[in-house]
Order: sequence, then C-alpha cells, then structure tokens
Amino acid sequence: MKIEYQKIGLIHSPFKNIREMPIQSVGAFGIKGIVEVFPAFTEGLKDVEGFSHIILLYHFHKIKESMLLVTPFLDSQPRGVFATRAPKRPNPIGLSIVKLDDIEGNILHVENVDILDGTPLLDIKPYVPEFDNHPADRVGWLEKAKGRVRNQKSNGRF
Amino acid sequence: MKIEYQKIGLIHSPFKNIREMPIQSVGAFGIKGIVEVFPAFTEGLKDVEGFSHIILLYHFHKIKESMLLVTPFLDSQPRGVFATRAPKRPNPIGLSIVKLDDIEGNILHVENVDILDGTPLLDIKPYVPEFDNHPADRVGWLEKAKGRVRNQKSNGRF
Repeated sequence: MKIEYQKIGLIHSPFKNIREMPIQSVGAFGIKGIVEVFPAFTEGLKDVEGFSHIILLYHFHKIKESMLLVTPFLDSQPRGVFATRAPKRPNPIGLSIVKLDDIEGNILHVENVDILDGTPLLDIKPYVPEFDNHPADRVGWLEKAKGRVRNQKSNGRF
Repeated sequence: MKIEYQKIGLIHSPFKNIREMPIQSVGAFGIKGIVEVFPAFTEGLKDVEGFSHIILLYHFHKIKESMLLVTPFLDSQPRGVFATRAPKRPNPIGLSIVKLDDIEGNILHVENVDILDGTPLLDIKPYVPEFDNHPADRVGWLEKAKGRVRNQKSNGRF
C-alpha cells in the first residue's frame, strides 16, 4: 500500500539552515514564525483561532535517508530512532506544538517555532490538554537530559 | 512535490469497525491494543521501553475523502477540520498518545487505544512531558465539551 500525502502549506521561520536550530519548541520560546496554509485549504482554518496552541505535523524535507539507530543531540550514545525525536526516521514526519498568536486569512502567526524555514506542512490539529497532557512518569534516556533541551542547539548532525 | 510514506507496522485493537469507538485515547482508558512493528524496523525500538507513554502517528486508511468543514462528534455545528481531530483531513494522519505497558521484540503492548484494528502505523515518538505538555489556556469550541469526550462514542459519521 502506497501512502501519499500532499503539501498543504509552508512553514516560515528564522531558521534558514539546519545548524544552530533549537531542537524542540520548548527550546524556541518566543521564536516567531508563520504558517502559510495554501488558499485551497483556508476554509479548514475556521474556528482554529479559538485555540491557544496547535499541533503542526510536517515533512522533514531535507532528510534523504532514515536510520534505525541515531545518536540524539542530547546524548552521546546511539538510541533507537523511535525512542528519539530525531528527523532521520523511516517516515520523516515532524511534530511541533506551537503557540498560536493570530490568524489572518490563510496566515497563522505562531510562537515557539523549532522548524526549518520552508518546511512543507502536512496537518494542523488543535492542542487540547484534555487529550494531549499525560502524566508520563518515565522518559527513558531523556531522564538525565531534563532541562538541557532548552539550551541545546542542533549541529547539522542530521 | 510528492510525499510518499510507508507502512512500518500495524495497530491491533478491539475496534473492528468505526462505529462505537472511543473518540480519543482519554475515552479509551484501559483499552488494550498491540502495535506490531514490522521486523525490518525492530532495531529502531531500542530504548523505547524506558518511556511510559508514546505518540503513535498512523494513517486513517478507511478515509477516502477529505472535508474542510466537519461536524465533530462533540458538537452539532460545522467546524474547520483543522480545529478538530476528525479523520477526514486533507492528509489523513492520526495521532494518539498511548500508555506503553511492555515490549517483546517487535510487539508493543499498549493501553488507552482509540484506534481502529488494522490501522497502518507511520511513526512512533517518545512522549516527553517537557516537550509535549503545554499550558494551553484556550480550547475554542471544545470548551463547552469538556469532560464529555470520555464517554462520547463514534457513530460512523466519518
């Protein structure tokens, strides 16, 4: 079965190359970006302005290969890719939760953007704490990296 | 630009048809399911067992059309699809956060499954409260539906 998706918009950000980027939106606090939804999909944005946060799903378009073991930015040893948020995944889908400041037509002004400029948008979902906040009590290898993610930058490793 | 993904596994659940399903994992508390990752990708599961919760991205394979306005299960009026979690999206990608009970080889035993049996898996990401819990203070039209999601079931509308 072939699974084929379409680009429904573009994400614009200050990050023009994959070096020196924040590695998660919590490390991109206050960084502003724009989500441009293609006009054909504008109608789907009705009611989105009521949400303070949205989930962006996007295509890591710079990724040309996948790896099953990766050494994450926050670690020094190889981890299974599904235990990381690294972009070189079998299906290179990125997920960021951003703050929604404003919508004008097909343009969304967002904050806390950890996404490369020009990234193709796949989907927007409302962020709903009742659905999306979970009392996760174990975070595996990330346990010892807690807090560091806010300052760690990418380095072109991926 | 064509964006083509591959099925990396299958999600098995007690839900054999799209009627009478929970509509979010918070409404599927304790419902057990199995995520079968195809053997070619098993190596990527290293270290996943350290996380209490994981994010599943999957393909809504029963969806044959998309709609820009949908009337959600929790509401009686049409909303922009990007303000909902409804499956008839331009790119029918589903997102569920489930509790991880155990991993045996390429088989993940999970809980709080709100996913149709036989759904193709696209990605697994670790759920990390530091990345994924956000103090969202506005949830738009869902404000008045709070609490109801736990009991609301699907009805074949999508």
